[in-house]
Amino acid sequence: MNAAMTELEQRFRRLALLGEAAGVLQWDMAAVMPEGGAGIRGAQLAELRLIAHEALTDPRVGEWLDRAEHEDAGRLDPWARANLREMRRAWRHASALPGDLVTAQSLAVSECEMLWRSARAANDFAGLRPRLQRVLDLVVEAARIKAAAFGVEPYDALLDEYEPGASAAEIAAVFEALAAFLPETIARIIDRQARRPAILPLGGPFPAARQRELAETLMRAVGFDFAHGRLDTSHHPFCGGVPEDVRITTRWDENDFTRGLMGVLHETGHAMYERGLPADRRLQPSGVARGMPLHESQSLLVEMQASRSREFVSFLAPLAATAFGGSGAAWSVDNLHRLYTRVARGLIRVDADEATYPCHIILRFRLERAMIAGDLSLGDLPAAWNDGMKELVGVMPPDDRDGCLQDIHWPGGAWGYFPTYTLGALAAAQFFEAATRAVPGIPAALTRGDFAPLMGWVRPNIHAKAASMTTDEIVEAATGRKLGVDAFRRHLERRYLSD
Amino acid sequence: MNAAMTELEQRFRRLALLGEAAGVLQWDMAAVMPEGGAGIRGAQLAELRLIAHEALTDPRVGEWLDRAEHEDAGRLDPWARANLREMRRAWRHASALPGDLVTAQSLAVSECEMLWRSARAANDFAGLRPRLQRVLDLVVEAARIKAAAFGVEPYDALLDEYEPGASAAEIAAVFEALAAFLPETIARIIDRQARRPAILPLGGPFPAARQRELAETLMRAVGFDFAHGRLDTSHHPFCGGVPEDVRITTRWDENDFTRGLMGVLHETGHAMYERGLPADRRLQPSGVARGMPLHESQSLLVEMQASRSREFVSFLAPLAATAFGGSGAAWSVDNLHRLYTRVARGLIRVDADEATYPCHIILRFRLERAMIAGDLSLGDLPAAWNDGMKELVGVMPPDDRDGCLQDIHWPGGAWGYFPTYTLGALAAAQFFEAATRAVPGIPAALTRGDFAPLMGWVRPNIHAKAASMTTDEIVEAATGRKLGVDAFRRHLERRYLSD
Repeated sequence: MNAAMTELEQRFRRLALLGEAAGVLQWDMAAVMPEGGAGIRGAQLAELRLIAHEALTDPRVGEWLDRAEHEDAGRLDPWARANLREMRRAWRHASALPGDLVTAQSLAVSECEMLWRSARAANDFAGLRPRLQRVLDLVVEAARIKAAAFGVEPYDALLDEYEPGASAAEIAAVFEALAAFLPETIARIIDRQARRPAILPLGGPFPAARQRELAETLMRAVGFDFAHGRLDTSHHPFCGGVPEDVRITTRWDENDFTRGLMGVLHETGHAMYERGLPADRRLQPSGVARGMPLHESQSLLVEMQASRSREFVSFLAPLAATAFGGSGAAWSVDNLHRLYTRVARGLIRVDADEATYPCHIILRFRLERAMIAGDLSLGDLPAAWNDGMKELVGVMPPDDRDGCLQDIHWPGGAWGYFPTYTLGALAAAQFFEAATRAVPGIPAALTRGDFAPLMGWVRPNIHAKAASMTTDEIVEAATGRKLGVDAFRRHLERRYLSD
Repeated sequence: MNAAMTELEQRFRRLALLGEAAGVLQWDMAAVMPEGGAGIRGAQLAELRLIAHEALTDPRVGEWLDRAEHEDAGRLDPWARANLREMRRAWRHASALPGDLVTAQSLAVSECEMLWRSARAANDFAGLRPRLQRVLDLVVEAARIKAAAFGVEPYDALLDEYEPGASAAEIAAVFEALAAFLPETIARIIDRQARRPAILPLGGPFPAARQRELAETLMRAVGFDFAHGRLDTSHHPFCGGVPEDVRITTRWDENDFTRGLMGVLHETGHAMYERGLPADRRLQPSGVARGMPLHESQSLLVEMQASRSREFVSFLAPLAATAFGGSGAAWSVDNLHRLYTRVARGLIRVDADEATYPCHIILRFRLERAMIAGDLSLGDLPAAWNDGMKELVGVMPPDDRDGCLQDIHWPGGAWGYFPTYTLGALAAAQFFEAATRAVPGIPAALTRGDFAPLMGWVRPNIHAKAASMTTDEIVEAATGRKLGVDAFRRHLERRYLSD
């Protein structure tokens, strides 16, 4: 190991620990912080990020990178080479931006996120708009600076933070391939489901405490270890924490347990990825999750592919009936599975079924590309949102609360993030197909609530790779082909149009 | 404002924010973190502390301090002068120690604190000893280095972190003045209480949820604002957080609500101090709480002076009876007040009454002075503890769990902290006497659960002063005399020996 590489590893260990400390502050802000703590918490987070920014853009880091790359890269093993590549990528992103801009972004995002919680509840887009404009202005400023430095389009510079090397053009091509069959597929599914007898309603209410107990049982079934993680509540469900202490959150709806429960299984998929990362690569850039598409593929593998399968629902149905004191035909495997695979044109992305979900994403992808390019102003966003919903999903939002105010991503500064959800859905379908081909016992195990065979395939093929390879390399090594739409299409046809 | 002072204020703002971020991680560790997160949390905290240490010992800080002190101090207002004095004190402490030692201390403390939780439960002093020895060795090393740099005794160098300028010799003198009357006073109180009819037991159990509701009611009575704070549970009750978001914790015992409830009132006193600090001095060294004796005086003012008064108990008794469905003579004001002012020789410091508490402290003061001086080894600690308990408190611990393992302070690296509890008790008595002299309506208001008159005196006289003056100056300005034992003695005689 050369000296420059040792210096870099120490520096990136510090950056990782700073990032993890900020993650604790963010989890706390979302899950337990009283409202009055918001202002100072924003200042605390901004300072941690500024310190990290200074540590990363320290001129010596650039010199160490040059030396490690030009003098000794040939002597490094593949993990160290990947580590060096990820260090360079982080450095390029950080050194492109002045510290003032980083601080301004952090403060603007903290303020906007906090206001978003009340503005959404009050359906007050106009009230949120000034702070959201501030966030957008800073995102555009950062995107333009990076675009000039990296030689790419501004939107692609944003994408690169969530999926290294991604380009809007490639994503648009994949989304076009989806759009080529999805509308017709959705129409066929809805038509087919409409011709069946109505789904029987499950009688509530469903106490949050019971939902929580059942959710914990299912988390354990997937493999979640409560000595290394927690389940809490927050406005917007997320997975935070660190591999040794993964924190997932959800919302409980006492009139409908089905969504909260699947939300927990979704976040548990994210948590399993974090837990499965290689312990001996901790605190180094090559040891983290590869990117957001792969992260989402792991949540959707657990939620959409495994947990909404008829096999797993046959395990879940009697547990749910016991938990909530339900009985009769409404609580049958068949009825619950139909409920969990119902396809409908709806307003809310996080509640969307897997068939219509990509339409929600294509809308956001188009809108944020246009906003970053300066072709769509925030003043025109609500109308553009509503037009797009009507065109792509086939429904018209009655208000902004269930329209353009529904997601935390833009107030939270996460522009360029949305496409990763659908890339993740495509990858999940491709992984599940490959996994069941390699381990045919996976579906049968799910009927017993046993995720071990699936996780046994996933861990070495995806989790253990961390960021040592690109997403394309991981997908191709695990499934034998590039990421595409075919497996997803087959999955929809098999689940919704074949029996 | 000169340039050096501006640089210093920016640097100390960063240090304050780093400290607050570490505080969130520590609160999380105590209140919500799963056990599996302990190792990495220790690394996260150690890194934050190392970064703060580097920022404070940066050679430029010493230059700025020299310039600000020698060139421009005369032009500074009193707050800025106090700020500069506190900056110099922090710098002296930090620059005395090498970064390696700071990191080693942080790691050793994290590991020892975590192990202490299980070791105490298992009564396993031998199991804890190696890690506690490591903490002690590092504390002694740091104390010796600082002692040489400051020209004081090693133990005084430790004291200075919790009470600036304190010396073991002065504390020993105060403790001797206490010891001159306390044993006889305790004996008289116990004898007097023994001659009264037995205190009637309160019939439990007392569900934790009900205790929590009642505790929240009392916190609000004191003035706690839940938009700016939380109440949670942890092994060892503490007050953390920041003025905008004060976090207190407690333990609930379903067989005895009285201790948990007073514990909450105690921590609420700490919280009120934090909330009462001047907002326009935030994130600067002169704007923080003065020291641990004054902090403890605020918790004991609320708990011992106000909440255990007959006046406040007359407000509390009917609330408690309603909360737990109690009725009859056991729930009378008289019985509850006797329960809340019972004096007994016991094993556990945190459960001790205010009369015997100083004896517990005098023991710890003697033992830790001896350990820091190298006159007592950890191997001999359990026996020395037990001998001291027999001599000072008059009881013999049956095991180490309720003996030398009972406190988190030594595993937590807080050597030199214990004396501040009793200094705080003396100050609380002196403050309450002065407050009721200045505002005679304070006791009557407490019968209505109204703390506003007391807080109205405390805020300007203590809280608003922050660290702009020394403890001695604040005590003398507020009460007209130096800190001593007389008010405490009068308080004991008034409450326990006069009616």
